[in-house]
Amino acid sequence: MNFSMIRYVIGLVMLFESAFLSLPCLIALIYHEKKGFSFWIMLFVCLIIGILFVMKKPKKTVYYAKEGFLTVAISWIVMSFFGALPFVINGDIPSVVDAMFETVSGFTTTGSSILTDVEALARCSLFWRSFTHWVGGMGVFVFVLAVMPLVGGQNIHLMRAESPGPSVGKLVPKIRKTSMILYKIYIFMTIVMVVLLLLGKLPLFDSLLLAFGTAGTGGFSILNSGCASYSPYIQYLIAIFMILFGVNFNVYYFILIKKFKDAIHYEELKYYLLFIGASVAMITYNIHSLFPTIEQAFRHALFQVGTVITTTGYASTDFNKWPEFSKFILVMLMFSGACAGSTGGGMKVSRLVIMLKTVKKELLSYLHPRTVRKVKFNGRIVEHEVIRGINVYMIAYAFVLMFSVLIISIDNFDFTSNFTAVVATLNNIGPGLNIVGPTGNFSMYSNLSKIVMIFDMLAGRLELFPMLLLINPYTWKEIKIRKNKKNKKEGHSI
Amino acid sequence: MNFSMIRYVIGLVMLFESAFLSLPCLIALIYHEKKGFSFWIMLFVCLIIGILFVMKKPKKTVYYAKEGFLTVAISWIVMSFFGALPFVINGDIPSVVDAMFETVSGFTTTGSSILTDVEALARCSLFWRSFTHWVGGMGVFVFVLAVMPLVGGQNIHLMRAESPGPSVGKLVPKIRKTSMILYKIYIFMTIVMVVLLLLGKLPLFDSLLLAFGTAGTGGFSILNSGCASYSPYIQYLIAIFMILFGVNFNVYYFILIKKFKDAIHYEELKYYLLFIGASVAMITYNIHSLFPTIEQAFRHALFQVGTVITTTGYASTDFNKWPEFSKFILVMLMFSGACAGSTGGGMKVSRLVIMLKTVKKELLSYLHPRTVRKVKFNGRIVEHEVIRGINVYMIAYAFVLMFSVLIISIDNFDFTSNFTAVVATLNNIGPGLNIVGPTGNFSMYSNLSKIVMIFDMLAGRLELFPMLLLINPYTWKEIKIRKNKKNKKEGHSI
Repeated sequence: MNFSMIRYVIGLVMLFESAFLSLPCLIALIYHEKKGFSFWIMLFVCLIIGILFVMKKPKKTVYYAKEGFLTVAISWIVMSFFGALPFVINGDIPSVVDAMFETVSGFTTTGSSILTDVEALARCSLFWRSFTHWVGGMGVFVFVLAVMPLVGGQNIHLMRAESPGPSVGKLVPKIRKTSMILYKIYIFMTIVMVVLLLLGKLPLFDSLLLAFGTAGTGGFSILNSGCASYSPYIQYLIAIFMILFGVNFNVYYFILIKKFKDAIHYEELKYYLLFIGASVAMITYNIHSLFPTIEQAFRHALFQVGTVITTTGYASTDFNKWPEFSKFILVMLMFSGACAGSTGGGMKVSRLVIMLKTVKKELLSYLHPRTVRKVKFNGRIVEHEVIRGINVYMIAYAFVLMFSVLIISIDNFDFTSNFTAVVATLNNIGPGLNIVGPTGNFSMYSNLSKIVMIFDMLAGRLELFPMLLLINPYTWKEIKIRKNKKNKKEGHSI
Repeated sequence: MNFSMIRYVIGLVMLFESAFLSLPCLIALIYHEKKGFSFWIMLFVCLIIGILFVMKKPKKTVYYAKEGFLTVAISWIVMSFFGALPFVINGDIPSVVDAMFETVSGFTTTGSSILTDVEALARCSLFWRSFTHWVGGMGVFVFVLAVMPLVGGQNIHLMRAESPGPSVGKLVPKIRKTSMILYKIYIFMTIVMVVLLLLGKLPLFDSLLLAFGTAGTGGFSILNSGCASYSPYIQYLIAIFMILFGVNFNVYYFILIKKFKDAIHYEELKYYLLFIGASVAMITYNIHSLFPTIEQAFRHALFQVGTVITTTGYASTDFNKWPEFSKFILVMLMFSGACAGSTGGGMKVSRLVIMLKTVKKELLSYLHPRTVRKVKFNGRIVEHEVIRGINVYMIAYAFVLMFSVLIISIDNFDFTSNFTAVVATLNNIGPGLNIVGPTGNFSMYSNLSKIVMIFDMLAGRLELFPMLLLINPYTWKEIKIRKNKKNKKEGHSI
């Protein structure tokens, strides 16, 4: 295990976090908020830790999947911890577990909140909270790698651990260039959204925060009423941009390099739009009697479908009150999630479609046992390794889901709340049903349950294995054995 | 597609059903019940259809997996349909859909009921209802093959389609002998249970019916109060026998041939007992304050764990009122199910353990990428094909589950009821939670929902693929194309 490399990378992440923290400091200065001092403190703490960690460059820069996975898992926890402390210090969220829950929810773009009164927060805290969505959406390492490429060449391991989807897509051969293209598209789309929100007569501060939450498919709202009080124009705007940010960024890259055919025929996009279209149609039909006009039913159906499939988690209305059929469509979309290679969470449309295709293949193989059949996606044969990876992911997912629901059941809330709370955090969505519904929040759960859900949010964002590797006793036994060996033999670290 | 062979086998099944129907006829004679005439009618109907179908022997006896799967799926539907008609004719269950639901629930050993007053049924109807559990538990084809081996030698396809578990275990090289050994063990254990129930001062009729329901892990109760009013002796007896019938019958075969070591070290058995032990301990601790004595808490915990993990579905108390933690343990056990090669339903312990091992293997492969690792079960390497089969099963299972909940959500009952109703029928358990809890029943659901659950019960019992193949449009398109070809070319059926 290359510990010095892990230390070095975590140091880099700390330096970046220090830089990110300058933004809420700036907001505090603009609005003359005293609570801003907590951000200044953490800015310097992160800076000092970062400098200490990167001062000594690692001798060996080679590292493998395990180091990549562990680095990413630890970085996300450390980043969330230091990102949570300002809330504790300035008193906006006094409990450490609550602050950690809120910050992990931010970075993982979940959007689940333990706050009962969002509007009571200082503006610098509100800003930081939403900004974590924006940072976490595209990924910290994507950012790190875009700005400061690491030597060694195994950076694909970091990117793979952080990027969503069944296989890592590099747009161009160089990781650094891929990262830069992704961030350019991301920044451009965020700016367009802010401008359009400003045209809707929303203040700049609100526009920025809403755009952060939408771009990262996070979903922290800045009003206690969520998105219910916004004008239809703004609600449509948010709905459309949520759906846009849930699209595989490969599609935008194709548009950028003018390969329009490739963009339009992108298979995942077709299924993604199909899921959205079908869901909106069914829900609109199912809920139309609850609203005075069809337009309103359609708008809220579109908004909620967009918010759930992209795992954003904004709400324009209390869908807890909708009929069970509509609610269950939303629960199904919670599992599906958005496209791979987007900022959205969940299982990803491509995984789902590939899984469906393997079942279809199985059925056909009974009819024609002698024909060798391969699952195709996007015109290409899906490699055996990818299918195996999806299967293991799916199984691990089911176990994490079950085990999490079991533990939070100790709090004795009803099954629907417990089940959807875990589904909502594990898929990085935000709200669930019943007590954790759009008008509720996660404050009622015990600290133990909150810690479980913190784990689930991180596991969901990093697609399980980095977090599972971190808590796997074998990993630590391994590290212990190797360290002992090293001490005995004075040999090299492996 | 070898249609004449399918016809022939269905004819055989009809003849067997005709023979089975003689038993309720006998009961009606003993108790002088006029309602028995409906069983006489169906006895003759099945006899005539059976004779017509088997009169002409098929020329080609060769058939493959697809014929095997379709034959089993169609046979189970036909068998349930003719088994349901007596209830409709004698007025005990006037609605055809309800009667079909009840009979499918019987044959698939689910034990979900649409009846609100069980005690109002005629004794012949009650007997038939419980006897379907006994027949369905070990399997109709296991019976057919034990008594009347088919020529052709591809009977493994029939057995595979009907037998539960990730891979079909033949105890001895000959299918017929395997079937006979299985039925001998089955009958012996049933008789032992009846005798022990009689010692508990239960009437013979009740003892027989309870034993049928336990042996098949079915769970139709014969009292409106379920198993709540029985003495502790009888409750313990039922609990222990449920658990015994959930054991892989291979273990009994090993005991029979005095290979005690193989029996004790059977890996699936260990995990099965581990799951039971851990669940009983946790639930007893969780519910002990609800009961006056620890013994009562333990007894009800043991009974409910036994009933759910073996997918029987009896209830000694209303576990709907238990704390959420205990209820969720039961929900988890609903998914696990009993051992493969037992009469129980669900996913099966062996599938679950193999899945857990693949996740562990995946994690270890990150730590040691160069080591080739194989999943082992019961001391043997699990073949790639078996793992692939489990993965496809699991995925298909998740899709069927989701889609079923979606459709029954139209009825607009609460999520917990809908979700557990589908889980309970798909895993052949019986009761779920809330409105379908131990004191509730399935009568409130619409006919559409009942039809979905009928499908789920059959799909669960036959482990998905026979039923999925049956509703797969490709199967029928295929058959149409082949038939057209045949008509044109006057060639052979393939």
